[in-house]
Amino acid sequence: MLVVIGGVAAGLSAAARARRIDSRLDILVLEKGRVISYGACGLPYFVEGRVRDPKQLIVYTPEYFRKERNIQVRTGARVVSISHPRREVVLESGERIGYDRLVIATGARCDSAGIAGTDQPHVFTLHTLDDAERMRRFIVEKQPRHALVIGAGYIGVEAADALRRNGLRVTIAERSSHALLRDDPEFTAAVVRHLELHHVEVRLNTAVNSIADIPSDLVVVAAGFKPNVELAATAGIDLGRTGAIATDDRMETNLRGVFAAGDCAETMHVVSGHPAWIPLGTTANKTGRVAGANAAGARERFSGIAGTSIVGIFGIAFATTGLSVAEARAAGFSPASARIESHSRPRYYGGTKTTVELIADRATRRILGGSVIGEDGATGRINVIASAVQTRMRVDDFEQLDLAYSPPFTPVWDPLLIVAQQLMKDL
Amino acid sequence: MLVVIGGVAAGLSAAARARRIDSRLDILVLEKGRVISYGACGLPYFVEGRVRDPKQLIVYTPEYFRKERNIQVRTGARVVSISHPRREVVLESGERIGYDRLVIATGARCDSAGIAGTDQPHVFTLHTLDDAERMRRFIVEKQPRHALVIGAGYIGVEAADALRRNGLRVTIAERSSHALLRDDPEFTAAVVRHLELHHVEVRLNTAVNSIADIPSDLVVVAAGFKPNVELAATAGIDLGRTGAIATDDRMETNLRGVFAAGDCAETMHVVSGHPAWIPLGTTANKTGRVAGANAAGARERFSGIAGTSIVGIFGIAFATTGLSVAEARAAGFSPASARIESHSRPRYYGGTKTTVELIADRATRRILGGSVIGEDGATGRINVIASAVQTRMRVDDFEQLDLAYSPPFTPVWDPLLIVAQQLMKDL
Repeated sequence: MLVVIGGVAAGLSAAARARRIDSRLDILVLEKGRVISYGACGLPYFVEGRVRDPKQLIVYTPEYFRKERNIQVRTGARVVSISHPRREVVLESGERIGYDRLVIATGARCDSAGIAGTDQPHVFTLHTLDDAERMRRFIVEKQPRHALVIGAGYIGVEAADALRRNGLRVTIAERSSHALLRDDPEFTAAVVRHLELHHVEVRLNTAVNSIADIPSDLVVVAAGFKPNVELAATAGIDLGRTGAIATDDRMETNLRGVFAAGDCAETMHVVSGHPAWIPLGTTANKTGRVAGANAAGARERFSGIAGTSIVGIFGIAFATTGLSVAEARAAGFSPASARIESHSRPRYYGGTKTTVELIADRATRRILGGSVIGEDGATGRINVIASAVQTRMRVDDFEQLDLAYSPPFTPVWDPLLIVAQQLMKDL
Repeated sequence: MLVVIGGVAAGLSAAARARRIDSRLDILVLEKGRVISYGACGLPYFVEGRVRDPKQLIVYTPEYFRKERNIQVRTGARVVSISHPRREVVLESGERIGYDRLVIATGARCDSAGIAGTDQPHVFTLHTLDDAERMRRFIVEKQPRHALVIGAGYIGVEAADALRRNGLRVTIAERSSHALLRDDPEFTAAVVRHLELHHVEVRLNTAVNSIADIPSDLVVVAAGFKPNVELAATAGIDLGRTGAIATDDRMETNLRGVFAAGDCAETMHVVSGHPAWIPLGTTANKTGRVAGANAAGARERFSGIAGTSIVGIFGIAFATTGLSVAEARAAGFSPASARIESHSRPRYYGGTKTTVELIADRATRRILGGSVIGEDGATGRINVIASAVQTRMRVDDFEQLDLAYSPPFTPVWDPLLIVAQQLMKDL
């Protein structure tokens, strides 16, 4: 019997993959919420009103898993403890369920404990479908006029965008000096400039101790993000130095037969070589697959993350991968960087402004990271840099990449090649 | 004195790069046409009428090169012979110009010699700005109703698209069984289906011996593409087995101090390991840069091409890189392939159908090539595959790429990762 705790991205990826590996294994997924398999990254677009039916965000139902995959799924099933010596989990109801292998995919949450007033009805987090439905209803019914968003990470800026499009005045308060979790002053400045252009007020270096600090009719807490590790820690599972669950590259914890995946687990960063905790849906799915495969008896490994992310803010993509210059320096590299502004396509074919940064190590010439800001083509460009980061490509090889060219899509000198040429002058 | 023969992509890249390497070198570019530095790949969009002013396709003028780069440029200067023993080139006018180093960037042409009737005024090629202006004028003034396009390569299908959008009935006749030069029956079938959907008639395996074979009011000859090598060959420069000028990886020919770049030269294909002749603007610029650098005394190398290309046909991108299954087999590999149909983005965020093929070698698991067909995101996806091809990435590593995800841009499982998972099942 394989028990999976958590029925969103990582948990369901694990269950589905385990079924593919072993068609006869008993698989049970326990989800504490009332729905499974929703696209959590789509929640801001539901708050915005662009996605009208929450069902659009639900990929699979428990019935689907039961009928099509022979996987049992129980919703409203909150696990309150794990007893590994007995190989069983205990539900809130007191029910005990035995397992041979266990996958922990308990996710993460916004912890608003340090902020006074967050128990009030106009304060929201944006983590579950319930959260999003509550917030959408509040916007429609109460017509709030001024929103405070705490945190300038992905969810914070996406929420700000969604609220602004609903006509609210929006203030973002961010404790650190960074936007989008990137220690990169120029990137942060570009994010802030773009938010301000769309009349979002951004206050960096601003700790909110009470929601009364900045008066508003609606508060989104999108800070204090933490992995849900209490269940695991209590069961004797080691946490890593990031505070998330430590695993090996098979996603197995220190307890044999117990795996962890998704937002509750840390992963190896391919550039720094150190464990990192960067909770994203893509990583959740990938680590879930690996955990599920190994829990079902295969031997697969997860090779780590490059830390690639993208977020759309009022129609412009802000994308990063690998390490920023400051982060690379902190990780012991000697980074060189070039940042250029170019066009996404030929001007005669409607190209728009694109900013690309590429970072390489002076000693090895290996590409360490980069960022792309632009209206079109940013995804593809950051993905090429991400591939280079992950394969330890040297900038000399990057500069010679044979990238596609045709006027409706790209300029003949892609911004990626221009920035690489620029970077090579400095190496 | 550095003399460059040809003032479009490769020639001007060579001249500009040589200037960066050596600020005091005398540099002279000889261009037989009346304009330089035009985006030849933009010509179909001028024929279409989307680009209204031919000046939009001209990137730099001779004056720009003279004033800003201290590079002399002569237009209307056709070189008729090269005497390497004397280190001089001879112009049509009889004028002789001495050189120390020479870059040959004479480009390519459509050879319609085998087709009867191509001397008539309603028959066009689409290779120079003059060609495009003549064709556009003919369309506007003569209002032709039925066009015959000979050749289903990039220029042929782009011309067909441009003419169709001007209301003409269009028939494409292609001698081979392939569209877009790819030996891939499924890819060709997709191209043909899409052309037919937009009421372009496509006849494969159809050799046109006379333009009278298929009656029409306008003919575009976009076949019989050949490198312009006569000048080089007469001067004793070796051609490769592709028929284009052979060079080493510094773009130097068998004559010391004489370099070749762009559409007239062959290049190493990074997958087959053999010289290939795939004339494209991106390769022209890159090989031009390398030739110019080396001609100016630097030591740079061109690492080869992956054969990446993309073409837009009625709003859908058709992109390929590396080798097709048939081409890989012919090159001695044992290819496995997966082809999937997926969505470019989450359906709730307007994702459209995307077809991706990924090909790897069974023995080494190395990625050999792939193709992407879709309305959005095709460029970025083919570029990720191209990077993998060029860095000899294994499919096992490709499957773990940390690609960007956010609903406005991509699905959580990018089609690239889905196709890699599919391919791994078959390896």
